[in-house]
Amino acid sequence: MTIDTDGLLGRLSGAIEANAAAQTAFLAKLVSFDTTRGKEAACQDFIASELAARGGTVDRFTIAEVPIAGKPGASAVVDVDYEKAVQVVATFRAPAPNGRSLILQGHIDVVPTGPLEQWEHPPFEPVIKDGFLYGRGSTDMKVGVASMIFALDALAAIGLEPAADVFVETVSEEECTGNGALATLERGYRADACFIPESMDNRLIRAELGSVWFRLRILGKPVHVLQAQAGASAILAAYDYITALQALTARINERARTHRWFGHIENPVKFSCGKIRGGDWLGSVPAWCEIECRLSVLPGDSLPDMRAWVLEAVADCATRLGADAPPALAWIGFQADGHVFEPGSEAEAVLERVHETVFGTPLERFSMTATSDTRQYDLYYGIPTLCYGPRGSGAHSAAERTELDSMIETTKAIALFIAEWCGTRPKAVD
Amino acid sequence: MTIDTDGLLGRLSGAIEANAAAQTAFLAKLVSFDTTRGKEAACQDFIASELAARGGTVDRFTIAEVPIAGKPGASAVVDVDYEKAVQVVATFRAPAPNGRSLILQGHIDVVPTGPLEQWEHPPFEPVIKDGFLYGRGSTDMKVGVASMIFALDALAAIGLEPAADVFVETVSEEECTGNGALATLERGYRADACFIPESMDNRLIRAELGSVWFRLRILGKPVHVLQAQAGASAILAAYDYITALQALTARINERARTHRWFGHIENPVKFSCGKIRGGDWLGSVPAWCEIECRLSVLPGDSLPDMRAWVLEAVADCATRLGADAPPALAWIGFQADGHVFEPGSEAEAVLERVHETVFGTPLERFSMTATSDTRQYDLYYGIPTLCYGPRGSGAHSAAERTELDSMIETTKAIALFIAEWCGTRPKAVD
Repeated sequence: MTIDTDGLLGRLSGAIEANAAAQTAFLAKLVSFDTTRGKEAACQDFIASELAARGGTVDRFTIAEVPIAGKPGASAVVDVDYEKAVQVVATFRAPAPNGRSLILQGHIDVVPTGPLEQWEHPPFEPVIKDGFLYGRGSTDMKVGVASMIFALDALAAIGLEPAADVFVETVSEEECTGNGALATLERGYRADACFIPESMDNRLIRAELGSVWFRLRILGKPVHVLQAQAGASAILAAYDYITALQALTARINERARTHRWFGHIENPVKFSCGKIRGGDWLGSVPAWCEIECRLSVLPGDSLPDMRAWVLEAVADCATRLGADAPPALAWIGFQADGHVFEPGSEAEAVLERVHETVFGTPLERFSMTATSDTRQYDLYYGIPTLCYGPRGSGAHSAAERTELDSMIETTKAIALFIAEWCGTRPKAVD
Repeated sequence: MTIDTDGLLGRLSGAIEANAAAQTAFLAKLVSFDTTRGKEAACQDFIASELAARGGTVDRFTIAEVPIAGKPGASAVVDVDYEKAVQVVATFRAPAPNGRSLILQGHIDVVPTGPLEQWEHPPFEPVIKDGFLYGRGSTDMKVGVASMIFALDALAAIGLEPAADVFVETVSEEECTGNGALATLERGYRADACFIPESMDNRLIRAELGSVWFRLRILGKPVHVLQAQAGASAILAAYDYITALQALTARINERARTHRWFGHIENPVKFSCGKIRGGDWLGSVPAWCEIECRLSVLPGDSLPDMRAWVLEAVADCATRLGADAPPALAWIGFQADGHVFEPGSEAEAVLERVHETVFGTPLERFSMTATSDTRQYDLYYGIPTLCYGPRGSGAHSAAERTELDSMIETTKAIALFIAEWCGTRPKAVD
């Protein structure tokens, strides 16, 4: 079954295609902001002004203003000033609403660029080539932010507005804690559904992994290298801990073979040591080494259990190494549950029909071996949340790019979803 | 055979013991300076004023003022401003000299403290306990600096002065390049012998290893951790390079079994990865990792050969890992030859007699599995150089300490050596 009441898709498509150049320019503008952690404010200010210009009531606040500590979904935070973590919620309130309300959510934080020599073009100087827009954050997920805003624009362009409240949220911290999304929820924003247009190749996330982030501080025994045999290198010991955590990961993956949502994926649980710092001086056996690691969390595995397994693996390794004590361990970011978007929601049914209408193919669901903000709305606050968005590639890599044709098609799907979910009415004339 | 013309040792000993409290206070003062790399100037200024007060003609200069690049013994320098690298040479010129001239040399640079939590007392707040003085640099080698200066004081105290020129040199960069010592030589200071009172348990260095320092910058393939299998972690690759360099070291140590001066020591050649930095973000497979390493150089192995072996081991590892290219390698510190202080010198004969006179035991020679400034004078400039000094322990560790009784006894040996080597004459009355 497809939907397209009164040629609505055709009219929306016409408006979106007519506005494609502006949407691409808007995306390029977003990508031109360096929104790595702690630097999101300028981009958020820009978006806030754009949403205000579209008639939204803008609430711009920082995570520091919202008491999130200890709330479900709250993650550990270190070395970051949440006074700088600006979040934006623009409310488009429907007078006398008679449809279903909707949160459109996208994150504007991006991961660090890594070595600049690996980039063909500077990461924050977007380049359009052969139908792709290149740059850090292009596909993850500024294209989604541009798409959800221009989907609303398309409705307005054809003289319609949603018949229920729509909240446009742009958040930070998606890449490390999810605390931006959490702050919008704890600030009180709720709706009948949430739509997060992450670049998912127009598939719907059925299940996703959680993640725990932690730091180990390993101490060695510093001696002169002339007595290297008497000292214990903290750098070499770090690799023993990495190996121990890889072994823990292998055991979890062994168990995952029968997991309902991840059993079909080989080794879905990923361990990565993403950051390492150790030693001060080449003439001394290194006395310290810090490693920062992340480990996926399967839906159904509890965070307390995960943390206990990590601590146990670390303690066992310390014993094997003959360390006086296990290294200090700190939880420093994501403490995110794995999560399943349960089948059967009305929101999913609407998206299914919308996707078939726009693309002519059945909606595919899949299990993602990473973490998004979806859980914050769906798992902890009971808001059915669709994570579905355009095609792109190279997220977190120096080859990150988004496919502009896909952006346009996905914008059509989002616009049609808004219309179908919220209902529409003729736009009030200002 | 022992020497002690006219009860000279007895008179020197009396003067040194009478001045022991002042010498200990002087050592404590030296240790109280944080003279880690780049911060040596204040300590050097203090020493310069002390030497000037003793009648020395002080030449205080920085390494930046001396063209050392490309000279024999010059080491690679990175990330350091030699405008701050203050060296001190105080000349005590003998009018109408009729003895043999002497350089007394000590380094005042110290290695970093490492984690402060490993120190019982703050590293630059010297503590005296049970006959030891604790603190960073106490044994390596501010005790030697105090001893050589107070040895000269003892001669003056008993009304004598050397019958030949004596140069008191305090240098930096001993712990990483040897460029401080080299700068004194290139500035023109020469003598008939050099004496470096490093803490050697009153043994003489017969042979010592050289060292090469290098940095590898390893690039991975950054991807999202959800595709971890497609990315190559630069941090994990770093351990492959470490393993490859350990294997190279094992091959060198195998060959060292028949080395004339190091064959009796098990695995004399030390490889150490002393510093590591890698990765930016836990959600990305780390795209870069830098490791800084040092590898000992046997006397007889040439530096060009050593460097070629390192490059070959790195290139082979890169091939095994399927890397597009070997990681960039930079030589970043010591490019120091191994070195043998050849038996048979007059200086050694004098030290032998002095040691027996002071300690009543034969002088022991040994092969040291580390690097000192000795080579700069002895190997490259043909100045017979004795590296011999007091007892201490914990060099480069958080338990560094020097034994104060040994300092006093060693000061006697140095004073007697000066008298025997340079000859003495009644001190001119000012």
